[in-house]
Amino acid sequence: MERHIPHFQEELELLKTRLLEMGGLAEDRVRMAVRALVVRDLAALETVLVSDEDINRLHIEIDDRSLKLLALYQPMAVDLRAIVSAVKINTDLERVGDLAINIAEAALRYLQHPPVKELIDIPRMATLAHGMLRDALDAFVRRDLVLAREVLDRDDELDALKTQVFRSLLDHMTTDPETIQPALDLVLISRHLERIGDHATNLAEDVIFMVSARDVRHHQDDRP
Amino acid sequence: MERHIPHFQEELELLKTRLLEMGGLAEDRVRMAVRALVVRDLAALETVLVSDEDINRLHIEIDDRSLKLLALYQPMAVDLRAIVSAVKINTDLERVGDLAINIAEAALRYLQHPPVKELIDIPRMATLAHGMLRDALDAFVRRDLVLAREVLDRDDELDALKTQVFRSLLDHMTTDPETIQPALDLVLISRHLERIGDHATNLAEDVIFMVSARDVRHHQDDRP
Repeated sequence: MERHIPHFQEELELLKTRLLEMGGLAEDRVRMAVRALVVRDLAALETVLVSDEDINRLHIEIDDRSLKLLALYQPMAVDLRAIVSAVKINTDLERVGDLAINIAEAALRYLQHPPVKELIDIPRMATLAHGMLRDALDAFVRRDLVLAREVLDRDDELDALKTQVFRSLLDHMTTDPETIQPALDLVLISRHLERIGDHATNLAEDVIFMVSARDVRHHQDDRP
Repeated sequence: MERHIPHFQEELELLKTRLLEMGGLAEDRVRMAVRALVVRDLAALETVLVSDEDINRLHIEIDDRSLKLLALYQPMAVDLRAIVSAVKINTDLERVGDLAINIAEAALRYLQHPPVKELIDIPRMATLAHGMLRDALDAFVRRDLVLAREVLDRDDELDALKTQVFRSLLDHMTTDPETIQPALDLVLISRHLERIGDHATNLAEDVIFMVSARDVRHHQDDRP
């Protein structure tokens, strides 16, 4: 048993490293899509649309590693919750990768029209969503409850920006019907960014679940 | 050990029953929200907005049960994957419940305006999404690969309807700018329904993962 403990902890560290890697990739893709939208770079958008192999590979690898850890060791308490959380976080990060594609698709349509307006709030939403995602992942790795709670608080800010984007675009559409179609795509992009914030919120909630005292019932009875 | 096997299977059955219950609740809420939108029933929408306690309670219970099963028994192969899948499915179903709220919120805004058009495709999308969700859950309970694959195929149909809804609403907005705001809410509702289909797709993928031969490495080595 003593031989197993360091081994399990090493495997768990490796699992965390992979999750950070996956988070980094997902974040890069979103950043790239939003930047390409702002600077009107069609080629960069095309790249986002076809470059999800790395994320898909990591998604499968992380699920495999998690199941292996559950099957080979019988992790207890916080370690068990860490692995179940890893499975959930893995799902959330994969969806963030998918949202980068949704953003790129809407951006491609948007760029077929003249600009509706200068894009200020959408990049701001992206920065906010990235920050939430990164901090939620950091909170997971460091088991940091304070940081996790702080991520939850920032979701309101993202929501407020989304509402602001919506109102401003509604004005444009009403004043100039020519802008309806491209403005609709900006509304969709702002919704996709809001959902990235939702995924960061899920991550933060998983961290709180993992670290907090809420424990699996009867669990202690198993200890020698 | 022999005493444990029937016990574990009973617990697993109970877990599945709870997931079906949760799926039923989530589905009911979506159905209620879409029906209230079609018949313009504000009171029913308000009910959807405040009635997510049951789903939230089940969400926590299912997570607890899954962790307990992982901690107390050391499930192998398909049983291990079934429990990990249950955790994932639980997350998807909770999001479907959240989407019912998003639909109700947009519907409440929509009902503040005169009707944009007769609602035909949106209820059709809802019926399709429900069917996918129910069949994916059935596939999980019966470990039915064929049904799971069939759910995946139906996602294209939902996508096509979403595109049709989008085009038709865009026409309305362009022809009559008065309809821009309510039509936007219908676009958002159609996106929420599309996401319910995405969650059903996730469920179906989990079923395939659970049943298929893809197994946890080194797993067989643990068997006596």
